[in-house]
Amino acid sequence: MNIRVFVNYKKNVLDPQGEAVGRAMQSLNFPAHPHVRVGKTIEFTVDGQDTPEFRKTLDKLCNDLLSNPVIEDYRYEISQ
Amino acid sequence: MNIRVFVNYKKNVLDPQGEAVGRAMQSLNFPAHPHVRVGKTIEFTVDGQDTPEFRKTLDKLCNDLLSNPVIEDYRYEISQ
Repeated sequence: MNIRVFVNYKKNVLDPQGEAVGRAMQSLNFPAHPHVRVGKTIEFTVDGQDTPEFRKTLDKLCNDLLSNPVIEDYRYEISQ
Repeated sequence: MNIRVFVNYKKNVLDPQGEAVGRAMQSLNFPAHPHVRVGKTIEFTVDGQDTPEFRKTLDKLCNDLLSNPVIEDYRYEISQ
């Protein structure tokens, strides 16, 4: 299975990198709203089946290693 | 329009952050292959229509600001 985890700051958390990108877009006259959010993606491959037990392990991995649950949210896509 | 840009290292470029995550997964006994890639997402909003001209501006933005075309690839999703 190919797994892609998306990690983003929670909505109310300040995103300094996103703000910097927003300002840079404006200085380049790109017509975007200044509210820009920058996140990260983690892609990897796992052998085996997409079982509820596997999802539990994956959630634990996301909470313990791939995101900081205090300030970040995650979601993932699983494809064969 | 909501725009989400995904930036990843090109396939042949070493990804030290991904390697570190891969090693950490193995030390946690998570059954993933050690080949992990870490990328980034940039999300923002633009007023206006999805025209070929807009896509040209967006490609320029991706090449000039959001990615380093020497070592990174990008793709984007546009949703209304």
